[in-house]
Amino acid sequence: MEKKAFTSAQTFLQCINCQHTADLLDERTFSCPKCGSLYDVVHNSDVSKLLDFNAYTKIFDERAQSKHHLYLNPRSRSGVWRFQEWIMPYLPTQYITTLGEGNVPIVRAGRYLQAWIGDIELWIILEGMTPTGSFKDFGGTVMISVAKAAGINAIGCASTGDTSAMAAAYASAAGMRCVVVLPKNLVTAAQIAQPLVHGATVIMLPGTFDVCMRVVRELVQAGLLFPANSLNPTRIEGHQATVFLTAQFFNWELPDFFGVPVGNGSNGSSIGKGIRTMQSFGYTGKIPHILGCQSEAAHPLSLSWLKACDARQKNVESAWREIYKPQMSVGVTTATAALIGNPVSWQKVIREVVHTDGMMNIVPEAMLNEAVAVCGKDGHFVCPQTGTVLAGIKQAVESGQIAKGSRVVAVSTANGLKFTESATMGLQDTIIHAQDCNTETVAKIMGF
Amino acid sequence: MEKKAFTSAQTFLQCINCQHTADLLDERTFSCPKCGSLYDVVHNSDVSKLLDFNAYTKIFDERAQSKHHLYLNPRSRSGVWRFQEWIMPYLPTQYITTLGEGNVPIVRAGRYLQAWIGDIELWIILEGMTPTGSFKDFGGTVMISVAKAAGINAIGCASTGDTSAMAAAYASAAGMRCVVVLPKNLVTAAQIAQPLVHGATVIMLPGTFDVCMRVVRELVQAGLLFPANSLNPTRIEGHQATVFLTAQFFNWELPDFFGVPVGNGSNGSSIGKGIRTMQSFGYTGKIPHILGCQSEAAHPLSLSWLKACDARQKNVESAWREIYKPQMSVGVTTATAALIGNPVSWQKVIREVVHTDGMMNIVPEAMLNEAVAVCGKDGHFVCPQTGTVLAGIKQAVESGQIAKGSRVVAVSTANGLKFTESATMGLQDTIIHAQDCNTETVAKIMGF
Repeated sequence: MEKKAFTSAQTFLQCINCQHTADLLDERTFSCPKCGSLYDVVHNSDVSKLLDFNAYTKIFDERAQSKHHLYLNPRSRSGVWRFQEWIMPYLPTQYITTLGEGNVPIVRAGRYLQAWIGDIELWIILEGMTPTGSFKDFGGTVMISVAKAAGINAIGCASTGDTSAMAAAYASAAGMRCVVVLPKNLVTAAQIAQPLVHGATVIMLPGTFDVCMRVVRELVQAGLLFPANSLNPTRIEGHQATVFLTAQFFNWELPDFFGVPVGNGSNGSSIGKGIRTMQSFGYTGKIPHILGCQSEAAHPLSLSWLKACDARQKNVESAWREIYKPQMSVGVTTATAALIGNPVSWQKVIREVVHTDGMMNIVPEAMLNEAVAVCGKDGHFVCPQTGTVLAGIKQAVESGQIAKGSRVVAVSTANGLKFTESATMGLQDTIIHAQDCNTETVAKIMGF
Repeated sequence: MEKKAFTSAQTFLQCINCQHTADLLDERTFSCPKCGSLYDVVHNSDVSKLLDFNAYTKIFDERAQSKHHLYLNPRSRSGVWRFQEWIMPYLPTQYITTLGEGNVPIVRAGRYLQAWIGDIELWIILEGMTPTGSFKDFGGTVMISVAKAAGINAIGCASTGDTSAMAAAYASAAGMRCVVVLPKNLVTAAQIAQPLVHGATVIMLPGTFDVCMRVVRELVQAGLLFPANSLNPTRIEGHQATVFLTAQFFNWELPDFFGVPVGNGSNGSSIGKGIRTMQSFGYTGKIPHILGCQSEAAHPLSLSWLKACDARQKNVESAWREIYKPQMSVGVTTATAALIGNPVSWQKVIREVVHTDGMMNIVPEAMLNEAVAVCGKDGHFVCPQTGTVLAGIKQAVESGQIAKGSRVVAVSTANGLKFTESATMGLQDTIIHAQDCNTETVAKIMGF
């Protein structure tokens, strides 16, 4: 038998509920056999080799350059692997598959958004400017690299969106097969474009979406398919880069708030984990509050948080966990990527929001679409999930939950080019139809 | 009258044909009144303030960091304005409108593309990873900033593609109006999504595309609309950043070849101008050859170049100019953004290809689409115009025009997400349709 890429004494899985541990490289189903809960990835630091906080940040600052002579090192090419010591410290370089993800812009709100959002210092981290156009690439590069170290040949999912695009791209780049199972006649050509382009095996079933999910789950349980979905906690490790990139941008200080959309809960989970990771490596600065935002159409975590606050129990966390229940029937929203009534990572979201003394918001549909339009006028085409976050931040500013002058970082999760239809829905009326083709007519329309 | 942002002794326009000069900030039509030719932008260097080449590169290297404390300086935020001294030296900072464009990855060919392309060192500069998803943003930031300095209130064009997206985004960000004139019933919802999202005034005419172009031209001639199209040479100044970013990445050495798609010719023009700019500032290294690539559907410059070479005249440039003629009727290609029979910048392309001892190629349709598919397997979703370049490079490697081991940089001009339909056209057959929804059936399809 070949030597393992790392030992389970170095990096292992631990159940978030019953603390049962498992070997990360042997695991194939990613749910605790004792209690069915999710796993965390845990790293045992070699205390003798630990650097102090400033020594790490100095290394990370040096890697943050785009130079040819550094190119072959994934820690320089990727804005995720730049932080390898904090993300997946024991994974040997030979297993790393990167597409150069992570080097995303962090931009200040433009003039329209600033006027709309109120009196705060707002920044947006544009995670749609990634190889497959969504934040999933941050987690994908880690998931596929660990899968490679585990000797996996085929990964898969039943997703029409960002997950299948990410899984297909990284799997193919790693020389691995990606299987995407979808319901025939229920998906659009645009939805399967990215998996097809990235060489995935797309299998259409004569059934519903739920049937496809069931088939994928059974293939995973049978050990025939490695799961690329949110169950896989190695993705969360990569998503921590959002926190580290932000800290680095602000010269290793964290902001007052992180605003994130909450669908399955990867963002909520990873922001909290990233903050705790920084603390474990000696960060002693400000701890940002997580503001988790959900749409009116799917808000199981926001609703239960609000109820838990109303209950005024001493322990918000246990009250929240008690009150929380999945939302059986979801509504209609343009923020389809977060239209999830039963979030996989609900327990992690609760843990992290509570750890950061954070909060949750429910955002009106009209307001989230308005936020997308406002960003568009500033020149940034963001997805409706980003709209959810920005609207949630505006609500929190108006209610005083976010104090004036606070530094707030909004996580923009995908490229607006993936959502052209919904983004223009409310804008069709703005098109002006000229009666004839005379230049004078057009000049008149223009106000001359 | 207000003081001008810069004087015509500092930066001015010069006709590429008859050398007639004009004031850049007063110009509204951008065609020479004496001979109708295009303008170049020319900067009079203040010789007393000129630094040596290494002093400039040191400044540019320092700016190439993404740090909060540098954020307010557009020369640090933007990968275009980083090189302001070489691009638009006399424009005061207050006029600059940037969306953070230019910080694009330069990636090595992945395993699939490397095997396909042959024995060269191939790199791709991914200019689709920009605010509006295409290389146009490099030129757009300069065009809009100069327009602002000129006191322009409304810019416009008759484009369904990258130009209208870019113009709308940057104009809105600059507080300027953007007018997009389009033929009713002849454009898709997807084609107008970006102008709408970025707040443009979209005017639909009951006519053809040519009618829209005529109306825009007349509005420009009447001084009512500032042109955002390829006539405007300030765009070329920004596109030079492709050359400077590449040089910087390779530690201020240029590659052996630049491969570019040639539609209207901005890329061909700007690569050559960028090289000449570097030479004027003291660059003494290798001069890359431009390889201009056109599809079978629209190849007026490639065809005339091939004929000029066959003619074996002493002066290729004059032979090429003599033989060149617009292609009256274009064919069908997925590379629609370069489907141009009468390129605006044909004279500049000829000048630059000849200056760099370059060449032109005609690329078979099947081969350019194959290139897109090959890139997809490496995890990069590129546009069909990028496919044209990669196929052209492969042809040149096979014919020996590009020597083995050469370092070649391919310019990828747009994000594949703008071209999902054409990218998946040839891939529909790869979808596997299962007969039933049994997990065993799917497992069998997977080969178990």
